[in-house]
Amino acid sequence: MGPGPSDVSPRVLEALARPTVGHLDPAFVALMEDLKERLRYTFQTQNPITFPLSGPGSVGMEACFVNLVEPGDTVIVCRNGVFGGRMLENVERCGGRAVVVDDTWGSPVDPNKLEDALKSNPGTKIVAFVHAETSTGAQSDARALTEIARSVGCLTIVDTVTSLGGTPVKVDEWGIDAAYSGTQKCLSCVPGLSPVTFGERALSAVKARRTKVQSWFMDLNLIMGYWGEGKRTYHHTAPVNSLYALHEALLILQEEGLEKAWARHAHNHRSLRAGIEAMGLSFAVEEAHRLPQLNAVSVPAGVDEAEVRRRLLEDYSLEIGAGLGSMAGKIWRVGLMGHASNLRNVLLCVGALDTVLSGMGAPIRAGRAVAAALDAHRAGAVG
Amino acid sequence: MGPGPSDVSPRVLEALARPTVGHLDPAFVALMEDLKERLRYTFQTQNPITFPLSGPGSVGMEACFVNLVEPGDTVIVCRNGVFGGRMLENVERCGGRAVVVDDTWGSPVDPNKLEDALKSNPGTKIVAFVHAETSTGAQSDARALTEIARSVGCLTIVDTVTSLGGTPVKVDEWGIDAAYSGTQKCLSCVPGLSPVTFGERALSAVKARRTKVQSWFMDLNLIMGYWGEGKRTYHHTAPVNSLYALHEALLILQEEGLEKAWARHAHNHRSLRAGIEAMGLSFAVEEAHRLPQLNAVSVPAGVDEAEVRRRLLEDYSLEIGAGLGSMAGKIWRVGLMGHASNLRNVLLCVGALDTVLSGMGAPIRAGRAVAAALDAHRAGAVG
Repeated sequence: MGPGPSDVSPRVLEALARPTVGHLDPAFVALMEDLKERLRYTFQTQNPITFPLSGPGSVGMEACFVNLVEPGDTVIVCRNGVFGGRMLENVERCGGRAVVVDDTWGSPVDPNKLEDALKSNPGTKIVAFVHAETSTGAQSDARALTEIARSVGCLTIVDTVTSLGGTPVKVDEWGIDAAYSGTQKCLSCVPGLSPVTFGERALSAVKARRTKVQSWFMDLNLIMGYWGEGKRTYHHTAPVNSLYALHEALLILQEEGLEKAWARHAHNHRSLRAGIEAMGLSFAVEEAHRLPQLNAVSVPAGVDEAEVRRRLLEDYSLEIGAGLGSMAGKIWRVGLMGHASNLRNVLLCVGALDTVLSGMGAPIRAGRAVAAALDAHRAGAVG
Repeated sequence: MGPGPSDVSPRVLEALARPTVGHLDPAFVALMEDLKERLRYTFQTQNPITFPLSGPGSVGMEACFVNLVEPGDTVIVCRNGVFGGRMLENVERCGGRAVVVDDTWGSPVDPNKLEDALKSNPGTKIVAFVHAETSTGAQSDARALTEIARSVGCLTIVDTVTSLGGTPVKVDEWGIDAAYSGTQKCLSCVPGLSPVTFGERALSAVKARRTKVQSWFMDLNLIMGYWGEGKRTYHHTAPVNSLYALHEALLILQEEGLEKAWARHAHNHRSLRAGIEAMGLSFAVEEAHRLPQLNAVSVPAGVDEAEVRRRLLEDYSLEIGAGLGSMAGKIWRVGLMGHASNLRNVLLCVGALDTVLSGMGAPIRAGRAVAAALDAHRAGAVG
């Protein structure tokens, strides 16, 4: 129950362990096509160029930037957490001119600030932002930010690592040009793959480049020889087994249905919240912008947060995440992602936290969390 | 029995499917340490910086170049197949000045040509070559090439993707500065990881850079915060399950012992060769430079090589590889790698080839291959 990797279902692990076939085997090529179609559903897009890159989410991020940013391009990066900062690093390493729109960690990106930045920087090529900041648990309004960017003809690069499968991501409806995600969050697949999708405008920009993409491994022009339509041309050896696993994870998601998965994540968040608040603890993010799949809980004053995590892990085999960057020591990050977003985990987590914190003499209201979570679950039971 | 991914043993698949734990979990961190130690054995090195990168071999290659090459650096690339050509692409995309030493595909790199190139290009920073060319099945003399490079103070980057675990790779004894490999060849692990090792001189060069590494994902300075000694700092989410699998694959290799694994690869190659030659077919690479784990067999005149591969796959569930680049249509690539280098596969392959080729009316001596392979096996039986 950390910020990912989330628990992987036995079905996905079983698929993972199927015998490895060649990455050009006709049976595997058929699986690739099916996988692309299911990813389109997950991203809610018709983009033909929708597939998993052979590396973790950081590769998805870097692939978007190296393909779309050329030296000298102006890129506005909205930064309200660790991963916005990482986008900035990427822009700079591509030789782009980065303009940073900063917001407080734990708050969403402010659309007004983006509008101002676009006015002050005519000719901006790309607007990049994180939809769901894994470092803080805050969700930004991807639809609004994308609309603003499009209204002045900018492309958008959107980080959906933690949102995909947990809260709505609607690439086509919102008009997102390039998005990347990870497999180890709400898709509940093993870590190591990065689903990406590129729309027509993004692909035109890649085709119109004056310079070569600086990364051979991430060059879309080359990768599409393997993942695109028609004959498969070897680019690199695809991580065959991980792709089996992703295929199975997407099957599971589609069996449940995206809307139901989103509702389940919201529901289990409400149960967790009831337990957390019954202890007298609070959330670091305002309710309207809270990610149901990643709960940033404020560490009570005087509590050794690392010791709490250590006890949860040792006594309950339960991992929750520490704060990152400026949030280090101030929050815990409790994941309720994908397969792991269920009542059993909610009850285990609030019960264990209650016991550990009261055992350490922390200033909480002890003994009420589990019942409160269960009550909330019953009151709002879904599905 | 293609050029990789090779067959993965059930033990490795079982390890792969173990429950996913967090990439900062103390138990996982202990496994990482053990994995690094076992990789050092596999590479025959004491280099502390020896670990698997979170991507396929192409990531290992690119990581070596982006970390070691700065704009304007002169790099000699020895090219005798597809993967040397890929090294060249990498040098150019890093802004390096590439000097190419070309050799015929199917031949090893000529050390005399490297010496000449070094004489004509004083101030060369790096010499890069492929130890075992997966596209042709030819092995170059890595020790000799490294010695020449070192004698004039150059760093070496060596591709050991197909050699590691199959034929001797002795990083310390040969004085290699940076080497990368893949998991899906003679280590018989799933594809998707790239073991790398960097010696002191290479690390000094990385530290002495005037410019930032152009890739955030592959920047050694950042990755070592996670894979190095001491406290683990989050860089990206490690592919936890694939690392379980690699750990198990390295355990298996160490149980057998490197020398025995090399002898087994050589032995099974001799059995395969006996069967291939009994049919009247020949190898594309001279015997002295042949890789036992990757056998380039010349396609007999008038035979539709793709049809042969299609029949092997459909009737025997047997994959062999096509030629790449200038070898396309001219050779088959028959892998005998790691777990898949065994008598059963040799007999299946020569028997199936014999049947399919004679069924298609190809000009071969039919009906003798299996017995010849078995005889050779008995004559030279190892272990």
